[in-house]
Amino acid sequence: MGVAFNGFSPSGNVTGEPVYVNYGRVEDFDELEALGVNVSGKICLSRYGKIFRGNKVWNAQQRGAVGVILYLDPVEVALEGTDPEHVYPKTWWMPETAMQRGSVFTGDGDPLTPGYPSVEGAYRYAMKDTLLPKIPSQPIGYGDARNILSLLSGQPAPTNWSGGFNITLHLGPGFAGDDSDKRIRLQVYNKFNQTVNYNVIGYIRGDIEPDRYVILGNHRDAWGFGAVDPSSGTAEMLEVSRILGKLHKNGWKPRRTLVFCSWAAEEYGLIGSTEWVEDKLPQLMDRTVAYVNSDVCASGTKFQVAASPLLASVVQEMTRYVEDPGSPEKSVYDTWKDYHSDGMGDEKEPRVRTLSSGSDHSPFAFYAGIPSIDISWVVDKKIYPIATYPAYHTAYETFDLMSRLIDPKFIYHQSCSRLNGLLLHRLSGSLLLPYNLTTYGEELQMAFHSLEEKGILEKLEDQGISLGLLKETIDNFTKTATEWHKHTKETDLDNPLMVRQVNDQMMLVERTFIKPTGLPEQPLKRNIAFAPSKYDSYSSHGFPAIHDLSYGIDNLSDEDKHARWEEIKLHISDLTVALRQAKAVLDRNFYL
Amino acid sequence: MGVAFNGFSPSGNVTGEPVYVNYGRVEDFDELEALGVNVSGKICLSRYGKIFRGNKVWNAQQRGAVGVILYLDPVEVALEGTDPEHVYPKTWWMPETAMQRGSVFTGDGDPLTPGYPSVEGAYRYAMKDTLLPKIPSQPIGYGDARNILSLLSGQPAPTNWSGGFNITLHLGPGFAGDDSDKRIRLQVYNKFNQTVNYNVIGYIRGDIEPDRYVILGNHRDAWGFGAVDPSSGTAEMLEVSRILGKLHKNGWKPRRTLVFCSWAAEEYGLIGSTEWVEDKLPQLMDRTVAYVNSDVCASGTKFQVAASPLLASVVQEMTRYVEDPGSPEKSVYDTWKDYHSDGMGDEKEPRVRTLSSGSDHSPFAFYAGIPSIDISWVVDKKIYPIATYPAYHTAYETFDLMSRLIDPKFIYHQSCSRLNGLLLHRLSGSLLLPYNLTTYGEELQMAFHSLEEKGILEKLEDQGISLGLLKETIDNFTKTATEWHKHTKETDLDNPLMVRQVNDQMMLVERTFIKPTGLPEQPLKRNIAFAPSKYDSYSSHGFPAIHDLSYGIDNLSDEDKHARWEEIKLHISDLTVALRQAKAVLDRNFYL
Repeated sequence: MGVAFNGFSPSGNVTGEPVYVNYGRVEDFDELEALGVNVSGKICLSRYGKIFRGNKVWNAQQRGAVGVILYLDPVEVALEGTDPEHVYPKTWWMPETAMQRGSVFTGDGDPLTPGYPSVEGAYRYAMKDTLLPKIPSQPIGYGDARNILSLLSGQPAPTNWSGGFNITLHLGPGFAGDDSDKRIRLQVYNKFNQTVNYNVIGYIRGDIEPDRYVILGNHRDAWGFGAVDPSSGTAEMLEVSRILGKLHKNGWKPRRTLVFCSWAAEEYGLIGSTEWVEDKLPQLMDRTVAYVNSDVCASGTKFQVAASPLLASVVQEMTRYVEDPGSPEKSVYDTWKDYHSDGMGDEKEPRVRTLSSGSDHSPFAFYAGIPSIDISWVVDKKIYPIATYPAYHTAYETFDLMSRLIDPKFIYHQSCSRLNGLLLHRLSGSLLLPYNLTTYGEELQMAFHSLEEKGILEKLEDQGISLGLLKETIDNFTKTATEWHKHTKETDLDNPLMVRQVNDQMMLVERTFIKPTGLPEQPLKRNIAFAPSKYDSYSSHGFPAIHDLSYGIDNLSDEDKHARWEEIKLHISDLTVALRQAKAVLDRNFYL
Repeated sequence: MGVAFNGFSPSGNVTGEPVYVNYGRVEDFDELEALGVNVSGKICLSRYGKIFRGNKVWNAQQRGAVGVILYLDPVEVALEGTDPEHVYPKTWWMPETAMQRGSVFTGDGDPLTPGYPSVEGAYRYAMKDTLLPKIPSQPIGYGDARNILSLLSGQPAPTNWSGGFNITLHLGPGFAGDDSDKRIRLQVYNKFNQTVNYNVIGYIRGDIEPDRYVILGNHRDAWGFGAVDPSSGTAEMLEVSRILGKLHKNGWKPRRTLVFCSWAAEEYGLIGSTEWVEDKLPQLMDRTVAYVNSDVCASGTKFQVAASPLLASVVQEMTRYVEDPGSPEKSVYDTWKDYHSDGMGDEKEPRVRTLSSGSDHSPFAFYAGIPSIDISWVVDKKIYPIATYPAYHTAYETFDLMSRLIDPKFIYHQSCSRLNGLLLHRLSGSLLLPYNLTTYGEELQMAFHSLEEKGILEKLEDQGISLGLLKETIDNFTKTATEWHKHTKETDLDNPLMVRQVNDQMMLVERTFIKPTGLPEQPLKRNIAFAPSKYDSYSSHGFPAIHDLSYGIDNLSDEDKHARWEEIKLHISDLTVALRQAKAVLDRNFYL
């Protein structure tokens, strides 16, 4: 369990001067360049955090680096000190040998079969023609990282790059003083194997609408013991399927079909779920009501939901029926709401975030346009300002860690099971689908607003590109969406076909945001309303392609800049058309 | 009405030596090249026929020609002599001044908005970045064509290129003898206008399933009077809508919604229908049961149907209820069947062809995957071995021509109306959809067989590319399709949701053949099972991309050849996956 490596890093034996690259983001590399530090031919030292590790390696590769060394910064994993008294097994913080493993592949699914299922007889691309990283990378502990970083030459790192070592960091390239002729040699020994992986799928057949699916999924593979990721979710999924199975044995029949999926190879680029979605795409897009993902169920005390805006309301509602594991006299809903309103009794519903990638809901939400939910209890950033639980993907994700230090009474596991169980029960049972279209409109409005906030709107207007029609179309959709729920209240619930028709219309809304050819440079991300950024799979954006396309545009040559602006105009047109279509599918008379 | 030009030909003033290029097919240009005749910088004289005129101009442009002159060969339009006694207005044959107009755009829909609707605010490509032809072209009459051709120098044309002039044709380039220093100057004056065009859409709302569409469409624009194309179809559509409207007023209500579409701008690349399909795509793909096209309804005495294999049976059945206009004691079915079996009482059903492009069913069938039908009475090739009725797209498509010479009693119009009316009635009314999946399997088998016949299979095997798995998948689909109809006989017809579920499964079959990113080099043709060839929009192929990709592969460089074989392998993989999916959507338990 202690073997540390990056999934999909090629083997390699490279030598070069070290450069410290902070988080390895595009802006970090830009800053280095501005400071006169070139990483070409160098080995990059990057701390984990902020963005998906695969993007760090990709960025380094794009700039000509020959290798990447990744480490956990004590500021993320050892907040109370790095001495043995303050790290695992005494606390949940990590010792200096802890290494975060993980895939560095920036694509989705089997790298050899992009966009189609990796089944028998399917075409396989040659490795060289894939998105797999070409340069080796390797995770190390912060003990080793400190040893290297403390010897670096060059100018001091910017102050906000300093991290958790109590030393002044230098950028390099290369080592200082007597060590200036020294280099780093990075030797990576990985084996690429093609293996058969198995998803395990279970069903409770729908009684009335067996051809409508509500899916719960969790992955089975782990980096080591995986007590948190994915086993906290696995425990939950097993519990939910046990309970619903028991109900079923006692005579309960869901209206719609429940599907339970145990995914393989999530840690290698969401392979199990992605290939399954690609294989079952026509049925899934035609028939799926919702996908509920369960990966890290319990890693902290703060409740967090990311979901399609369509599903925000049903999550909010169901949280009212589950007691809060931290304070059982309150509901999850109350605690969640209080957390954000600081107990001030804010009138608004607690916020459901839009989805980022990084787990198996990704192919459902971003490739197939299926409304998805991802629920977890995470680290409370008001208490610990860290990105995720310290043991994430390390060898210390043990049952001991979970049962002594994270969720000793397994009460977070319990609440998670209750909540997902209720969601599945409601989604599979309610006559009308518990979608909220109004929320979709609101999120689109917020997405538009964020273009304003980030100054993108102004930039576009400087180019004579108006977003007026896009805004108008969002407004029209929002209006129709709001009126829709008045309309559905008049649905004759005794007429099974009428109920089905109304539900089918609602199901079509999210599908209209799927652009068949995908987002620019992200062919397997096809949701043009909400998706992760190209530069960070862990992020979430409204209108992601506008963000991606306008990113770094000022640094382009005049010709490239012109082409990019045209691409942006075309994409705004695509968005406007999709929103127009999303409104049109809700026509009450089904007129075209 | 007499103005002759090619739609979408650019204006131009070009001078060059003439070359006779036969039909302007790829193989014609190849043959010229083999004979040492280069068309670069030349003006090509091409007769109409065999392939879509746009492909002729495209092929000429690809080989470096500077202009194209198109003419009607007397062998197609003046079979009984070119003197006034044997041509219009005495007969339906064409005089020497008759010119066939028509678009030379090889794309679909508005050239400025490929793949998305040409609505307000939509992005428009610059003309130079479209598929519009770059060289001018112009139709002329066969009188003028003969004058030019009779003067050509160079070697004699191959014997099968001779056509209907009673002279020995020479290939050129250039003129013979004293005229050898002469050139042809081609001056084309066309105006490009952007105009607003209107589709006119009517409905009879479905009583039980208003959200399921059966669509009848016909275009309204014409090259001149258009008595045959499209007005024979327009008369039929108006009649069908009048009759069904009357039934409706008297209390009849279709189960599903009937939609009547009068398309604009068909003659300019199917613009009206294509843009409408692109705009309504999500609803259409989700909800449409069938599209029935009506363009040229009556141009001859021979009955002809092209349709999705799913709809072959319902057409065959409905033809039994319509009397044959030529011999009213028989049904259309009987005459149709006798025609192909030579009255020998063949046991097999008369053949329904697969669809080619060239009319408004194209975006439905090939872009959206909607089962479509195109019915007409055409010229009987056993009587006249010509491609289409002589007046096609000329100024002579008059009411006079129709009412005196083509369908004097309008009995073919009548039968066409009856047949399409019955089809609409059945498709919109039957509880279970009248799809025949078995026929789909049979057509796929024939498509595979045609790969064998054309030697493509052998070529692939020489490259070590096996089609064994593809064949196995076709067999599996065929087996499932055949069993399906036993299964549906057990459907509880009193259970409205169960009926809907079974129908929805069937509707999904054709959609699974839609490849989101389109066929190689034909992004707007997305049906990988049946579609026109890239080299001729008027053709129809099973597995079109295999034909297109293997076409001319032997002439490629080694490197390009290798890349092309890989592309073929990838496409065979795509096909196999789609067939696997088409089978999977028919799972009786809706398992994934």
